[in-house]
Amino acid sequence: MSKDRIIDVRIPGERPYQVRIGRGALSTLAGTVRDLKECRRVVVISDENVGPKWGKTVREYLSGAGFETYDLLIPPGEESKSLEMAGELWSAIADYGFNRDDLIVAVGGGVVGDLAGFVAATYMRGIDVVQVPTSLLAMVDASVGGKTAIDLPQGKNLVGAFHQPLHVCIDINVLSALPDAEWANGFAEIAKSSVVAPRRSFYEWLRNNAAGLVSRDPMLLEEAVYTTVDFKASVVMKDATESNGQRASLNYGHTLGHAIEASSGLGTIWHGRAVAEGMRFATRLAVEVADADIAFVQRVDALLDSLGLPQLPFQLSPEDLLAHMKTDKKARGGVVNFVIAEDFTSWELMAVPDDVLRSHLTAWCQNKARLAAAQGGAQ
Amino acid sequence: MSKDRIIDVRIPGERPYQVRIGRGALSTLAGTVRDLKECRRVVVISDENVGPKWGKTVREYLSGAGFETYDLLIPPGEESKSLEMAGELWSAIADYGFNRDDLIVAVGGGVVGDLAGFVAATYMRGIDVVQVPTSLLAMVDASVGGKTAIDLPQGKNLVGAFHQPLHVCIDINVLSALPDAEWANGFAEIAKSSVVAPRRSFYEWLRNNAAGLVSRDPMLLEEAVYTTVDFKASVVMKDATESNGQRASLNYGHTLGHAIEASSGLGTIWHGRAVAEGMRFATRLAVEVADADIAFVQRVDALLDSLGLPQLPFQLSPEDLLAHMKTDKKARGGVVNFVIAEDFTSWELMAVPDDVLRSHLTAWCQNKARLAAAQGGAQ
Repeated sequence: MSKDRIIDVRIPGERPYQVRIGRGALSTLAGTVRDLKECRRVVVISDENVGPKWGKTVREYLSGAGFETYDLLIPPGEESKSLEMAGELWSAIADYGFNRDDLIVAVGGGVVGDLAGFVAATYMRGIDVVQVPTSLLAMVDASVGGKTAIDLPQGKNLVGAFHQPLHVCIDINVLSALPDAEWANGFAEIAKSSVVAPRRSFYEWLRNNAAGLVSRDPMLLEEAVYTTVDFKASVVMKDATESNGQRASLNYGHTLGHAIEASSGLGTIWHGRAVAEGMRFATRLAVEVADADIAFVQRVDALLDSLGLPQLPFQLSPEDLLAHMKTDKKARGGVVNFVIAEDFTSWELMAVPDDVLRSHLTAWCQNKARLAAAQGGAQ
Repeated sequence: MSKDRIIDVRIPGERPYQVRIGRGALSTLAGTVRDLKECRRVVVISDENVGPKWGKTVREYLSGAGFETYDLLIPPGEESKSLEMAGELWSAIADYGFNRDDLIVAVGGGVVGDLAGFVAATYMRGIDVVQVPTSLLAMVDASVGGKTAIDLPQGKNLVGAFHQPLHVCIDINVLSALPDAEWANGFAEIAKSSVVAPRRSFYEWLRNNAAGLVSRDPMLLEEAVYTTVDFKASVVMKDATESNGQRASLNYGHTLGHAIEASSGLGTIWHGRAVAEGMRFATRLAVEVADADIAFVQRVDALLDSLGLPQLPFQLSPEDLLAHMKTDKKARGGVVNFVIAEDFTSWELMAVPDDVLRSHLTAWCQNKARLAAAQGGAQ
């Protein structure tokens, strides 16, 4: 059995916590909770897909270690990140008599982690949560950094809180049953990190191991998850609440990515595919506004291709995309802030004027529509 | 015109902020906001009682200073501290296109401050809020310290967040139209602070000026508010998130007070009257468990009497009260933690065994029921 790897997350003013990554890491969870916290009651929050398998496993470990356990299952999917569902969870744990000594364990993908994290962040003004991410994206993104959220009818993640977990337990073995969309979402996040991470070696490792990752080699997956989480943790330690700009790098590819998701109707285009498109667009924008080399554009394109994230044909309006970007949480004073990488490891946050964005988006959307027509014609 | 007084609140890891206290302080609000924040849009959240008067005044000042202003009115009363109302406010400000650059100003009593504060704490994971408390209790309690909350069907304040305001503006002149219950609530909080504050001079000043306060002398009210807020700010600076026990002193009289409110049906007994009862009970408990002198019991009784908070007759079950105390957010491991003052300025947090509490509560409730019968007979 391989040794688990540990990442220490130390955020000024917050209790430090550890992220454990390994193949089989789940088996350590109950012992870790016992070491970290004198608590009696634990509720495992999961969804109807993951809960019967991994939620149940986690609950059994915890019960076996002497905890009084409860479980709450939510319907799978983004629709569960609602005020109503948060209300049901708050009421359920209040009915169990939970107080600040008790613990929530979130077992699932980003929806479960965001929702259960928000419930923990706000129940009695904050109780502890342990994150057990079960999708590749949740492992490398949602589980670290303390962002929690629910959606409003007006937009995704509009209500939330920063709430660092007590512990994060990442078991690579739970990935085996993941659907294709989830792999794409995770690989897009890993690819993004390799562009904005401070060491080019991450990109080079990823380029060299893309084939093995796509064929889901567990050792390579563990390495990719470890490197991505380690990078994310280092960013979060410098800017826990998105206040000094460091954390902006994590938004690379996401400004247009989110707009593509919103414009095409949430759920129509996989998140990872939309982010990959956002990255392709950002490299091209960088050629104009930041003197990026065309070779960089080609390298990012090739990396995404090799990770199973090919160019996406779509028919969307540039004005719609621009309008969505302007409602982004990171927009300031009506100007869209774009993370622009001039090359691997070299990025900055730029306020891109509307006219520049509009002309690039128009060309990009025309190109995408041509691609859609060509692929449609080929069928 | 008298000079406003300023209290600096510096909490480790949080942006410092100021509490301004004065007669006419509202007139400074727009200028202060301009100095503190580059923002364009401000929404004034108030209730249907306070909004048409003070909410409107604040909005006019802000509009006059060039801000784009909006207003949202909620129905008055605790019922508005609901998930549904929070949802309406979040959606409204999302529809206005608010982002992290924009500002919420809460103008009202504790309900408005708690609800608008929670909406601000969680909208986009936190936007700025300025608190403009208009009740005596909100001025001395809710406006400082960053506690925000909404209620669940299972209990008050069960969902919330710590979110320090950008600024607090306390204008003593807005107190003139306050109903009697609100005066009682405020005076109970001020009396409580005088018991647990580190200097006995606060109690002595209060004892000497009780008559003037009860007749609502504005200069004395300003002094009492200033001293109470200054004390509260000093406590909050040492324990912003109720994690090290310092903040427990603020809960003096509240453990039984909350239980009396809950047992008698929320809204039946004024909060301030219930807290005053909680203080009377706590002094008597202290005679047994902490060697308090009977003279201390008499002094607290006399202080509460002089502030218009006479003994309260009621008919409640000691078991009900005990059960409510055990569900308190501050209960730990099923044991009730009581703030016990042995004398003015001298308090500690004690885990009081159930049997001790039960026997004292039984005697107390019998006494209260006799009082109720006697007063009923006298009518």
